[in-house]
Amino acid sequence: MRRIITLTTDFGLQDYYVSAMKGVILEQAPEARLVDISHEIPSQDIMAGSWVLKNSAMLFPPDTVHLVVVDPGVGTPRKPVALQIKDQFFVGPDNGIFSLLTEEHDFEAVELTNQSYWRSNPSSTFHGRDIFAPAAAHLFNGVELSDFGKPLDDLQTYRWAVPIADKDGIQGWVIHIDKFGNLITNISSSLIDEVIKSKTTKLYVGNTILDEIANTFGSVPEGEPVAYIGSAGMLEIAINKGNAKEMLGVQKGAQISLVLQKED
Amino acid sequence: MRRIITLTTDFGLQDYYVSAMKGVILEQAPEARLVDISHEIPSQDIMAGSWVLKNSAMLFPPDTVHLVVVDPGVGTPRKPVALQIKDQFFVGPDNGIFSLLTEEHDFEAVELTNQSYWRSNPSSTFHGRDIFAPAAAHLFNGVELSDFGKPLDDLQTYRWAVPIADKDGIQGWVIHIDKFGNLITNISSSLIDEVIKSKTTKLYVGNTILDEIANTFGSVPEGEPVAYIGSAGMLEIAINKGNAKEMLGVQKGAQISLVLQKED
Amino acid sequence: MRRIITLTTDFGLQDYYVSAMKGVILEQAPEARLVDISHEIPSQDIMAGSWVLKNSAMLFPPDTVHLVVVDPGVGTPRKPVALQIKDQFFVGPDNGIFSLLTEEHDFEAVELTNQSYWRSNPSSTFHGRDIFAPAAAHLFNGVELSDFGKPLDDLQTYRWAVPIADKDGIQGWVIHIDKFGNLITNISSSLIDEVIKSKTTKLYVGNTILDEIANTFGSVPEGEPVAYIGSAGMLEIAINKGNAKEMLGVQKGAQISLVLQKED
Repeated sequence: MRRIITLTTDFGLQDYYVSAMKGVILEQAPEARLVDISHEIPSQDIMAGSWVLKNSAMLFPPDTVHLVVVDPGVGTPRKPVALQIKDQFFVGPDNGIFSLLTEEHDFEAVELTNQSYWRSNPSSTFHGRDIFAPAAAHLFNGVELSDFGKPLDDLQTYRWAVPIADKDGIQGWVIHIDKFGNLITNISSSLIDEVIKSKTTKLYVGNTILDEIANTFGSVPEGEPVAYIGSAGMLEIAINKGNAKEMLGVQKGAQISLVLQKED
Repeated sequence: MRRIITLTTDFGLQDYYVSAMKGVILEQAPEARLVDISHEIPSQDIMAGSWVLKNSAMLFPPDTVHLVVVDPGVGTPRKPVALQIKDQFFVGPDNGIFSLLTEEHDFEAVELTNQSYWRSNPSSTFHGRDIFAPAAAHLFNGVELSDFGKPLDDLQTYRWAVPIADKDGIQGWVIHIDKFGNLITNISSSLIDEVIKSKTTKLYVGNTILDEIANTFGSVPEGEPVAYIGSAGMLEIAINKGNAKEMLGVQKGAQISLVLQKED
Repeated sequence: MRRIITLTTDFGLQDYYVSAMKGVILEQAPEARLVDISHEIPSQDIMAGSWVLKNSAMLFPPDTVHLVVVDPGVGTPRKPVALQIKDQFFVGPDNGIFSLLTEEHDFEAVELTNQSYWRSNPSSTFHGRDIFAPAAAHLFNGVELSDFGKPLDDLQTYRWAVPIADKDGIQGWVIHIDKFGNLITNISSSLIDEVIKSKTTKLYVGNTILDEIANTFGSVPEGEPVAYIGSAGMLEIAINKGNAKEMLGVQKGAQISLVLQKED
């Protein structure tokens, strides 16, 4: 029994866009319980949306339907799709938003071509309300993936920055900055384990050099920078009770280097 | 069976105002399912609240109760009201917030004078918690509209800007700017159909002139301005993958002209 | 039967932090109905979180579980706790966030030491997902408070500013500024009743002097400052249809004086 439909968009909440989708869903699936994942994905930021999905969608109960609308190409030929990954279902535009999930998991996908599951007279600028929300409601109501349209073997992938590891260490990038100003890198703890092992390194971020990877923010005095493995399993840099983005002057996309030190 | 109570306010979410209303509702109607329409209506902006309601409330399932608190006149003689429009119910202040709905639909309204449906000792500054939330819960629980107080024949109306159509074309205004910076005008697609028909026009917005009404953002190259009929049925101006408000330097209230061109 | 789990955090909604907690809760307690109290508590602002909780948590139906994560000390020895106050349950860090409630009400508290109620391999930076959300779900599912860990006689308290009353009047401070720019002070209506009684006073706030405590915003002309007893029972200062923070140039922490006038 499906119980939950989640919503992830870049719509914000000051407009009617999210509530129109909720109305459409509840009109067709009045028993659905709606859970907002986020409506504060930065406008048209497919990468940020994919990051949020990757770190939360698979935690939900079996048969949850995830409606995802970060859709700068609405009305162009980008495909509307639905997919299943393990016991979770997803609906949204095929623009790379599902990349971080489909990189890691097998999936079954279809294009939403069956117009009997669309709202009549769909607009060309709001497929969230007119195509994706109805599809999410129909999935919730038990319509099979294969009924929505023809199978797709591939989905668009988004070109993610990949860290570079060599004999000198690891070079990566800041891929996300969270609400606290914490810098999240694309350097995973497993890559660190593999390349750095127990050797000593220095970490370079902006004009700051750190000597070790600590356990948590509070491992250093207040106001000091600290590197640690964050809750997504990636290397992060923060300021204990401060804002690393502001205090270190670092932006999304900035380079982070873990440099192996010569043993003397 | 009523299932859903929606909430629309200008309270934001950093204060206790929304959660106090939710506590009061759930204490009286524990089975109610709460759906946030928006708490990000700009402070005291009755027009923006009415616009969001108009474009989402009527999409909800029958018997939904909509609690609406954008209430700059709280504690003054403006009336607390409840109304029914088709199969939807509304509770809020009589300050014009329901205008865009009541212009379009018949309604039945009452003033919330029956104090047995208020919280005891209501404050003079938070009728959302003390008068409107309890009324929404009681409506949800099946109390009849007529039990809340005496019928009202009229509600306050809000003076909306109306576009001007003449032999030269249509002059309208930007009535809303959405989260993406898209400019939404008060020029409806039906007015355009009626006045412009298939004649050629130029559209003037700020210092920009557009030659046609396109299908969607992606009909023009990235970074270019585009006019199209938006999902609310109104003429809108956007920048493909950009922010029209910022890039065209246009504010809410700015004039938009559709000028008929002489056939040579 | 427990029905509701509320969430109060400083996480914002642009990251995966809130949705990861919701996924974890719903995976363990699929029948729980989630209600967001706020995710817009200013980052690491324990005092603001406590203020929001104090003014809304106790309004919820019996057996509501309140998950509270404003946790700048995550990963340090601050204790994870659960507590019961009357018929409400709370889970969160023992850092003073519950102070305003426990000052006013008796409570029963335990430390969350029983690791069988944690997620396996908890991170050191996201106890919200790995310790607190599971505890909230288990409380919802009927686990007894005493099963989570050893009883605590005391919780951390937060040093709140207390107003000073003497023969000249009352001196207090702005403890919160809401979304509208209204200034909320730590001067309660009961303290005013006791000290000021019906004597005449002048109220000093920034460079502004007010002669009386009015009923509501609308008691003064638009654009004028007004003092009144707000919906939390505290003295507040606002501008009718304006923003007192901006127009009076007053910040959180600013001094407010109610000075008794000599009778001539």
